[in-house]
Amino acid sequence: MGILWIVSSGPGSTQQLTPAAMKAIASADVIIGNAFYLDMLEPLLKNKQVIRSAMGKEVDRAREAARMAADHNVAMVSGGDAGVYGMASIVLEMVEHEFPSQKVIVLPGVTAATAAASRLGSPLSGDYVTLSLSDLLTPWDVIEKRLGLAAQMGTPIALYNPKSRGRPLNLAKALKIVLTCRDPETPVGIVKNVFREGEETHITTLGELAENDEIVDMHSILIIGGEESRIWKEDEDVKGIITPRGYHRKYVY
Amino acid sequence: MGILWIVSSGPGSTQQLTPAAMKAIASADVIIGNAFYLDMLEPLLKNKQVIRSAMGKEVDRAREAARMAADHNVAMVSGGDAGVYGMASIVLEMVEHEFPSQKVIVLPGVTAATAAASRLGSPLSGDYVTLSLSDLLTPWDVIEKRLGLAAQMGTPIALYNPKSRGRPLNLAKALKIVLTCRDPETPVGIVKNVFREGEETHITTLGELAENDEIVDMHSILIIGGEESRIWKEDEDVKGIITPRGYHRKYVY
Repeated sequence: MGILWIVSSGPGSTQQLTPAAMKAIASADVIIGNAFYLDMLEPLLKNKQVIRSAMGKEVDRAREAARMAADHNVAMVSGGDAGVYGMASIVLEMVEHEFPSQKVIVLPGVTAATAAASRLGSPLSGDYVTLSLSDLLTPWDVIEKRLGLAAQMGTPIALYNPKSRGRPLNLAKALKIVLTCRDPETPVGIVKNVFREGEETHITTLGELAENDEIVDMHSILIIGGEESRIWKEDEDVKGIITPRGYHRKYVY
Repeated sequence: MGILWIVSSGPGSTQQLTPAAMKAIASADVIIGNAFYLDMLEPLLKNKQVIRSAMGKEVDRAREAARMAADHNVAMVSGGDAGVYGMASIVLEMVEHEFPSQKVIVLPGVTAATAAASRLGSPLSGDYVTLSLSDLLTPWDVIEKRLGLAAQMGTPIALYNPKSRGRPLNLAKALKIVLTCRDPETPVGIVKNVFREGEETHITTLGELAENDEIVDMHSILIIGGEESRIWKEDEDVKGIITPRGYHRKYVY
């Protein structure tokens, strides 16, 4: 029996891929993943059997990986952290149902929320909520309920999958919910293609974005600030978003 | 003027440190950080000026880093992801107040929540909440309010700083709040010293842990499952926690 590694490839650039993940890819005979993420790992894939799969084919991809691991070392590559909106859960479900004795090792990675946060300053800093606006696998009423509660928490919210061609209006609906209990001046950071070609960073406010969210696309991660988040400026120049950790409540500095 | 890197060193092992973080450390003349995390990076610190700081000295450490960056390349090292309960926010606050033109680059890392999740299977998978039970910088009533709302969300909750010598009872109080709206059979994973010497993984349930939480210490990360999380078993052998992503609502497999 082979090993089945579930490898988190991070936000994109191999500069953000852990040595443990690289080693697992190097040790595998078969690499399987979404073509979008595999293309970014091209230099690591030489002399490997590479199975490029498409978005929407996650169930088939998971089964294929678990099946091949019976007699190969297999690396299932998943973008960001595989345990966050990634392939870890569906691969483990397959193993649980059909290949219960398969040896599986999950390797963590830099997840999109903290990757995006690093490009914005320090907008997360403490407690925060991670939510996806995709209603492909989670019913929309569940997402709305979670958004409402998250907004009441007063913490920053990292939004994955804020928009896509098939779901162009979810973001506008979501912002409306958050605005019911958070100030329109709350900073919002948008990072497109974080650590990938075409990276872009935008800083705006909840109120402004609710009026026009054209800037957001399916490759964007949004970070909605918490009650204490502020836009970090030098004179008129916007440098990022800071959510203080709370040292100001304890120290004078 | 030098560069001030805020470097995320990941959960511990250099196997989980990104190449970008390693490069920043290699390029810096001065490395500053909590001694606990610097010790794990020992091989990378040769020929550097190293400033070892202690827990509780975050404000002084941040000021020192920002001050030294005026004429050195400085790497402020922070465990996990520096933007999550780490040094990024306080360093940026210092720069904002006292050194506004300082060039700062934040580098993300593997955060403790997803590192711990990877050792447990796939307990986070989708939406989740990240909360700290330390009331050093966040008032306890705010933490309680957030816990109550997070429990209502039905998502997994990653708990940082679940316990310490100074706060031995916060976890018990927190579990009681979560139990008001989550089943006692909800799986809970505990990972101590994730990716470090002495790593330990424990899987239990909310009800059991509420009766006896002795196993949890200050080096532990807890993951409380969501409404759909289940303990993953092969026969009687507990292998981990799976929170399904939702593919079962859309596909037959």
